[in-house]
Amino acid sequence: MSYARQMLDTYRRALDADAGTVAAAIDAMNDCAQACIADTDADLGEQNVTEMVRCIRLCLDCADVCTATAGVTSRLAGYDADVTLPLLHACVSICKSCGEECERHARMHEHCRVCAEACRRCEQACRELLDALQISG
Amino acid sequence: MSYARQMLDTYRRALDADAGTVAAAIDAMNDCAQACIADTDADLGEQNVTEMVRCIRLCLDCADVCTATAGVTSRLAGYDADVTLPLLHACVSICKSCGEECERHARMHEHCRVCAEACRRCEQACRELLDALQISG
Amino acid sequence: MSYARQMLDTYRRALDADAGTVAAAIDAMNDCAQACIADTDADLGEQNVTEMVRCIRLCLDCADVCTATAGVTSRLAGYDADVTLPLLHACVSICKSCGEECERHARMHEHCRVCAEACRRCEQACRELLDALQISG
Amino acid sequence: MSYARQMLDTYRRALDADAGTVAAAIDAMNDCAQACIADTDADLGEQNVTEMVRCIRLCLDCADVCTATAGVTSRLAGYDADVTLPLLHACVSICKSCGEECERHARMHEHCRVCAEACRRCEQACRELLDALQISG
Repeated sequence: MSYARQMLDTYRRALDADAGTVAAAIDAMNDCAQACIADTDADLGEQNVTEMVRCIRLCLDCADVCTATAGVTSRLAGYDADVTLPLLHACVSICKSCGEECERHARMHEHCRVCAEACRRCEQACRELLDALQISG
Repeated sequence: MSYARQMLDTYRRALDADAGTVAAAIDAMNDCAQACIADTDADLGEQNVTEMVRCIRLCLDCADVCTATAGVTSRLAGYDADVTLPLLHACVSICKSCGEECERHARMHEHCRVCAEACRRCEQACRELLDALQISG
Repeated sequence: MSYARQMLDTYRRALDADAGTVAAAIDAMNDCAQACIADTDADLGEQNVTEMVRCIRLCLDCADVCTATAGVTSRLAGYDADVTLPLLHACVSICKSCGEECERHARMHEHCRVCAEACRRCEQACRELLDALQISG
Repeated sequence: MSYARQMLDTYRRALDADAGTVAAAIDAMNDCAQACIADTDADLGEQNVTEMVRCIRLCLDCADVCTATAGVTSRLAGYDADVTLPLLHACVSICKSCGEECERHARMHEHCRVCAEACRRCEQACRELLDALQISG
């Protein structure tokens, strides 16, 4: 069981979604941030780095947005829809763009295939959290 | 002249807003993140820390959102409205909430008065950047 | 297999330690950062928040240091002992202090017990990476 | 007066260095992180991006280390020499390396000249804070 889930299970929160959905989203954001940071470095090591520029930029944005969204989502005690919902929308958008760009390089670069998978999982987990929060909101 | 502005003046970007507005927003986000990080620590040092809990939580969220938004805004070369606009909306919302909470403690704690000012400036600078991006978009 | 490990397995690096040791350290740092972020929020929700101030401060420092160290360690392609070694030493120190403080609250607060475990694991993983890098260096 | 300095002037801390030296270091770290984030994006936009790979990697490390060190330094209330001193040493090392690499590109790329300046100032400010902390420690 992830630390995000273990922590969520140990304290009371004014949580607007079940702990499993929240923990899955936090884990997916942290995984995606890590994959994007590593993919940036791997892209920079490729001979065709010129063709990887868009991928690198998207990975940098994706890591920043995932990290901030994971932080805010981990503090759901003070949940504010006007902050969390647009953040989750931004996270879905960047994970989608970054995942699609990584996918384009997946056959040539295995690291982009792995990163594309992390982005897609994060996009999906954020959509599920958004659905849960909007139904309960 | 801030480093954000100096950097923006040195390279070509597919920028959808004038460099002054973008640099002012980046500077205000970085200032606000710094004020929130310091205010969190100052709040933790107060005797009435129990009454500062909401302020601390908002400052932590505000610092995370400002930092990520400053990063993404600094990479406007790959500007994507579906990412930047919701991020800026999230930044406006958290700066407004955090600024209002800090203002409530401003008479008792000078550090909250300073932080409230940084939040209000950041909220205003993000609104101006949003206006500029939406007009040009 | 973690994304950190999957990514490390997909590209060539001038790596001074085996991929398992590096990936374990990166995973432990990301887990520890997440546990510390969540523990900060949980601490703020406790009735005895006044007694949790030191724990909160250490968790905030620990999250910052773990995040930066995970980032730099993920970019080992450009490994520089003068940067990575002191960072890992700082990470060991803060994980040790934060883990000990969390341990003090572990009987009263389950979230602190979980966070203490994450800190200890990260301290240990950083020590193992330090050993590997210093032997090879 | 910067927000870092304003905040430091508003609350009591167990500070081991004068507020001017601490605030100057925090400001220089935040400026350097911002310059490095922007320089990364500018480097990615250059035609000779292949020759900028080392510069990009150093800028990414430098931004991470400066951000974490600024955070920990802003929480000097819980000052711990075993954490802050190695962090400051890591910050000096990466600012030195990053500044030297940026300097190599300064004649061709104005953005690297600006970033080199931010790195050198941060290196110097960190050295001064280290001196102050070690004398008092």
